[in-house]
Amino acid sequence: MKIKVINPNTTASMTQKIGMAARKVAAPKTEIIACNPTMGPVSIECHYDEALSVVGLLAEIRQGEIEGADGYVIACFGDPGLLAARELATGPVIGIAEAAMHTASLIATGFSIVTTLSRTRIIAQQLVENYGMSRFCRNIRSTDLAVLELESDSQARKVITEECRQAIVEDNAGAIVLGCSGMADLATAISQEIGAPVIDGVGAAVKLVELLVSLGLGTSKVGDLAYPISKPYTGILRSLAP
Amino acid sequence: MKIKVINPNTTASMTQKIGMAARKVAAPKTEIIACNPTMGPVSIECHYDEALSVVGLLAEIRQGEIEGADGYVIACFGDPGLLAARELATGPVIGIAEAAMHTASLIATGFSIVTTLSRTRIIAQQLVENYGMSRFCRNIRSTDLAVLELESDSQARKVITEECRQAIVEDNAGAIVLGCSGMADLATAISQEIGAPVIDGVGAAVKLVELLVSLGLGTSKVGDLAYPISKPYTGILRSLAP
Amino acid sequence: MKIKVINPNTTASMTQKIGMAARKVAAPKTEIIACNPTMGPVSIECHYDEALSVVGLLAEIRQGEIEGADGYVIACFGDPGLLAARELATGPVIGIAEAAMHTASLIATGFSIVTTLSRTRIIAQQLVENYGMSRFCRNIRSTDLAVLELESDSQARKVITEECRQAIVEDNAGAIVLGCSGMADLATAISQEIGAPVIDGVGAAVKLVELLVSLGLGTSKVGDLAYPISKPYTGILRSLAP
Amino acid sequence: MKIKVINPNTTASMTQKIGMAARKVAAPKTEIIACNPTMGPVSIECHYDEALSVVGLLAEIRQGEIEGADGYVIACFGDPGLLAARELATGPVIGIAEAAMHTASLIATGFSIVTTLSRTRIIAQQLVENYGMSRFCRNIRSTDLAVLELESDSQARKVITEECRQAIVEDNAGAIVLGCSGMADLATAISQEIGAPVIDGVGAAVKLVELLVSLGLGTSKVGDLAYPISKPYTGILRSLAP
Amino acid sequence: MKIKVINPNTTASMTQKIGMAARKVAAPKTEIIACNPTMGPVSIECHYDEALSVVGLLAEIRQGEIEGADGYVIACFGDPGLLAARELATGPVIGIAEAAMHTASLIATGFSIVTTLSRTRIIAQQLVENYGMSRFCRNIRSTDLAVLELESDSQARKVITEECRQAIVEDNAGAIVLGCSGMADLATAISQEIGAPVIDGVGAAVKLVELLVSLGLGTSKVGDLAYPISKPYTGILRSLAP
Amino acid sequence: MKIKVINPNTTASMTQKIGMAARKVAAPKTEIIACNPTMGPVSIECHYDEALSVVGLLAEIRQGEIEGADGYVIACFGDPGLLAARELATGPVIGIAEAAMHTASLIATGFSIVTTLSRTRIIAQQLVENYGMSRFCRNIRSTDLAVLELESDSQARKVITEECRQAIVEDNAGAIVLGCSGMADLATAISQEIGAPVIDGVGAAVKLVELLVSLGLGTSKVGDLAYPISKPYTGILRSLAP
Repeated sequence: MKIKVINPNTTASMTQKIGMAARKVAAPKTEIIACNPTMGPVSIECHYDEALSVVGLLAEIRQGEIEGADGYVIACFGDPGLLAARELATGPVIGIAEAAMHTASLIATGFSIVTTLSRTRIIAQQLVENYGMSRFCRNIRSTDLAVLELESDSQARKVITEECRQAIVEDNAGAIVLGCSGMADLATAISQEIGAPVIDGVGAAVKLVELLVSLGLGTSKVGDLAYPISKPYTGILRSLAP
Repeated sequence: MKIKVINPNTTASMTQKIGMAARKVAAPKTEIIACNPTMGPVSIECHYDEALSVVGLLAEIRQGEIEGADGYVIACFGDPGLLAARELATGPVIGIAEAAMHTASLIATGFSIVTTLSRTRIIAQQLVENYGMSRFCRNIRSTDLAVLELESDSQARKVITEECRQAIVEDNAGAIVLGCSGMADLATAISQEIGAPVIDGVGAAVKLVELLVSLGLGTSKVGDLAYPISKPYTGILRSLAP
Repeated sequence: MKIKVINPNTTASMTQKIGMAARKVAAPKTEIIACNPTMGPVSIECHYDEALSVVGLLAEIRQGEIEGADGYVIACFGDPGLLAARELATGPVIGIAEAAMHTASLIATGFSIVTTLSRTRIIAQQLVENYGMSRFCRNIRSTDLAVLELESDSQARKVITEECRQAIVEDNAGAIVLGCSGMADLATAISQEIGAPVIDGVGAAVKLVELLVSLGLGTSKVGDLAYPISKPYTGILRSLAP
Repeated sequence: MKIKVINPNTTASMTQKIGMAARKVAAPKTEIIACNPTMGPVSIECHYDEALSVVGLLAEIRQGEIEGADGYVIACFGDPGLLAARELATGPVIGIAEAAMHTASLIATGFSIVTTLSRTRIIAQQLVENYGMSRFCRNIRSTDLAVLELESDSQARKVITEECRQAIVEDNAGAIVLGCSGMADLATAISQEIGAPVIDGVGAAVKLVELLVSLGLGTSKVGDLAYPISKPYTGILRSLAP
Repeated sequence: MKIKVINPNTTASMTQKIGMAARKVAAPKTEIIACNPTMGPVSIECHYDEALSVVGLLAEIRQGEIEGADGYVIACFGDPGLLAARELATGPVIGIAEAAMHTASLIATGFSIVTTLSRTRIIAQQLVENYGMSRFCRNIRSTDLAVLELESDSQARKVITEECRQAIVEDNAGAIVLGCSGMADLATAISQEIGAPVIDGVGAAVKLVELLVSLGLGTSKVGDLAYPISKPYTGILRSLAP
Repeated sequence: MKIKVINPNTTASMTQKIGMAARKVAAPKTEIIACNPTMGPVSIECHYDEALSVVGLLAEIRQGEIEGADGYVIACFGDPGLLAARELATGPVIGIAEAAMHTASLIATGFSIVTTLSRTRIIAQQLVENYGMSRFCRNIRSTDLAVLELESDSQARKVITEECRQAIVEDNAGAIVLGCSGMADLATAISQEIGAPVIDGVGAAVKLVELLVSLGLGTSKVGDLAYPISKPYTGILRSLAP
């Protein structure tokens, strides 16, 4: 099984980290192709970054269809372009926010999300509502860390761990969802430190793609998520026409 | 990995069918232990049946903990005793309704549930709301088939297939969730006939347990789902005291 | 009119207290039969306790139908087995959580629930949603008192009173709902101390059963709550077959 | 106990019918004072009628406080002026829509409302949401009968009965709520004809007032429903100043 | 275009302030008729005040229809009598709470309301829900200022400004909605002090009426908001009969 | 005042039609700049088209900021890129779906949306929920017309008119929202034919921008919608870096 794990930003060190997190949990016969677009933002921290990351992401999905990918992971916690990607893909496409939230709801009655900058909370909030997770999400906490500080800041892990610990106590949360793919390497360690499940969406998403593919389930092509209708696109987007 | 798949009713033929559906999708190294309680209703078709099926179900979970089960599937579409079972278990416990609905929401923007007797619809409706699936569930359709008719009625498959076909057209559903573990053997065939994804909760639940265990995730023991507090139970339930 | 008030746990002193609270408010011609099952948990403090208390509870309902009970009260704040009990009963069945919340919503625009252990809050939370009371319930507060401490702890009343007082101030609540039948004897005194309505579900439930019976209303047997379908049950539950 | 049952329109024949329905269910020691304002609309069939009926209604509540009424029923299905009336009253104030819906939710998993003119449905719809009854209300059906046709039209009962019958079948409703106090005399007969519970809000509201008073519960004067602040009113409303 | 801006209370100084706020934003060709009823409460601070203010308000709307008003603003933050007024009017009728909330939702992902007395918060809360603004309203804050203190209290502006400032910080609000027409003169100054948009409903409502009229849109007379049915009214309300 | 009205697809004839609809309602001093991107899809009929239209749309917004636009209209009923555009803009940005729905909720208690292809309904459905319009939206109806058929198909107007007429009758809608900017020229005529308000989002959005600008309100730069953080973008998107 070939799973394409797409980091929608263009920071290669983050793609590497994501790829490692994916491979760590993948089944022996699963091939993980971790990649990032050659165009777009170096990090995704607002609606604007997110909207523009979608171009490169969709280009990777298109390419993946040609290369025979069996499924896809969108490795940014805003799940950018999720439904558009599903229209393109025959197999399943899973966002890491979606994956982490669904997973958390299966092992706890409530979870808290620990994310990066405060302004990304609204993005997480909308996903919580879109995915029907309002009942389960007890809080969305920001750490005021920028995404790329996760790559470099030696204090970042400590800050995140403290926020997770507080979430358990103050929010009455039974589990933590890490709100950025740049935290993918921290889940296990933080879980051990705070004594509660901590969920990284990259791992959860990879396993959900495996689950769906092994059940013979791809994106439904009946109705809302059917392949895009063929039509001309113009300008620098011409090559992306469906 | 040892997964105990519990059919909460006492009909052995249904347990066999469920076991086969579970083994069909399980990973090579997964051991499926399909069982049913030695006490309780032969089929579950109302709140009363469901409430009493929970005793035997929980006894099986207790036994599973002793035997070293890594996780559990509750193979009845009402997900009876789900949170109580989670309190008992160290590993994950997944209900098949929950599994099927979450799975469907990942591959379609909306699904319809096709179930047995009309009076079971209210049970499914409450689960839809409990799991945050109101946005995704477009309809709950009953076939007026009793659970045990699925074991014997040669017309049953035809009736169910027709209901699924109508759901796609009339409800604008992108996927079908089969609303009874007694339909576990039908998903693939119906999917081919109607040309849309059809999800059997037994298979989906087995794979979700595998997913959680492989990610090192069990039921959160922090807070709401902690182990039951030790205390005396009396009468015929004495042996079930936590 | 004969109302069976069932304490679903097996602690006789609590049953006595509940019976007294019921008789205190019952109409002159109402006969209160306070009882508890001979099997099951001594107190109900989690999903597991609750699930297993249902067996004895339903046995009492069955017996009540034979004895000619006109209606029933389920005297545990989790309202265990409510819909199953309704399927069995011709007359009305009222849970004390349900009774207290509906009552509170008629005299205040918002109420807070004061309950026992922190882990029971999730049970109350789900009932709030099931009963459509999210608009009215401003908070669910736990006192970290175990159910049986209410029987013995001389400090319990003080702790509960303080929590009620804070709820009025901090939650902007207009009324308090006591979240355990073991608090049934405290409502009047606390109400006087804090100067706000305090609602005990046992009393409210008894009066709601009287109300329904006097209006000629029993549980609807059309559709979802019809009598359970007759079928075999096996093992130690054989005698409970519908 | 003295309960003032206020028909907010000025049609005396309807007040009489409402009074009879109230007395039919009242406890032996309950005194029912059925009345209607001397000002306002002859029937209430839109927001405008409703808004202006409130003046006379509140005047009756004020008078009731002077006369020592223990509680009040607002006998119009729009529950006009409910919260304003509660601010004035020491005892409980119950609207018949509120009473009927709460009652229905205790004996069935879903109910349908059968009302008069189509344009009144929006009023019922808003009450359903305000009272948290969206989960329970399966449909709101209009009969295109004007309120005063219920006083005179010999066909009215037949039309209403048929609508109730259809609600049971088509809406999967377990109980019917009659959506106008002018139907208060029909509940028992229709219930017998259609074989399902039919709830008249007047009777239900009278019993709820009795319930609350007997439990020592009046309108909470802590916070939102405290007595109106004393202040000048001018013009023809001068005498209504709090 | 002639817009009638109705202050539903009888305090002329407040009407003047409202009229000034309206004229400040009105288009050059818009004629603002600011008025208040000659009957009713001097200020509106609870459900009772609100209910009785509606009589005078509706009388003004009736008069406005005769005088050829093109649209109406209800200049009290509880939007009293809004739907009744719409039934009377051919043109649009806009409440200032409604106007302010809709406006805020177009320029920020979340807003907080800053209002007067604590007991008015429940009124604002219900409007938030009625208008579908729950997603956008992050908090409703009271200042414990009475409405008429806004006319006289030199400290009022300072208190309100501080509450607005805290809302931005503590509620993560992007905009402030002022919760009383008596604050109509403060929006610009507070906005400058706190560095965030502050919305006065009077101005927003005037502009929304202009918007609707210029688009040729009045209140829909199809269905729910059709003109009231002609019928007798009695007593002091006789002249208000539709 | 300069308002940039951006048709996010690349079909110039549609841009012209949109420009005319905008100018028809704009205030005398408003300058309408109707444009479309030079890159992207010729029509927007699914999530994929929508996602890719956002690039060109955001480029136009960036350009608008340089050119001194006072506000923006996104003239596609999916409101693509709305929040990203708001981050870029100092002034207000209004989507036509948003504009039409808010407007409709001010003149009717319920509206229906009449849109193009069936697969676009899910996009409208999500906007309904995002904007808090679930209470007001009674139905979303598709006509099975492709967007560009609106440019050429002489039958299109008739089909749309019939669908609108049915919506009024079958959905109990008081107003119609046209679900595509390609229908912008039809609103007035259809309204006259069906005798109910029909709302074109282009006109409504232009007037809302005028409203906000005239009130001195732009997009809140406090918190969630602050300007994007400056950072590198790579590849063909380099020039779009914030």
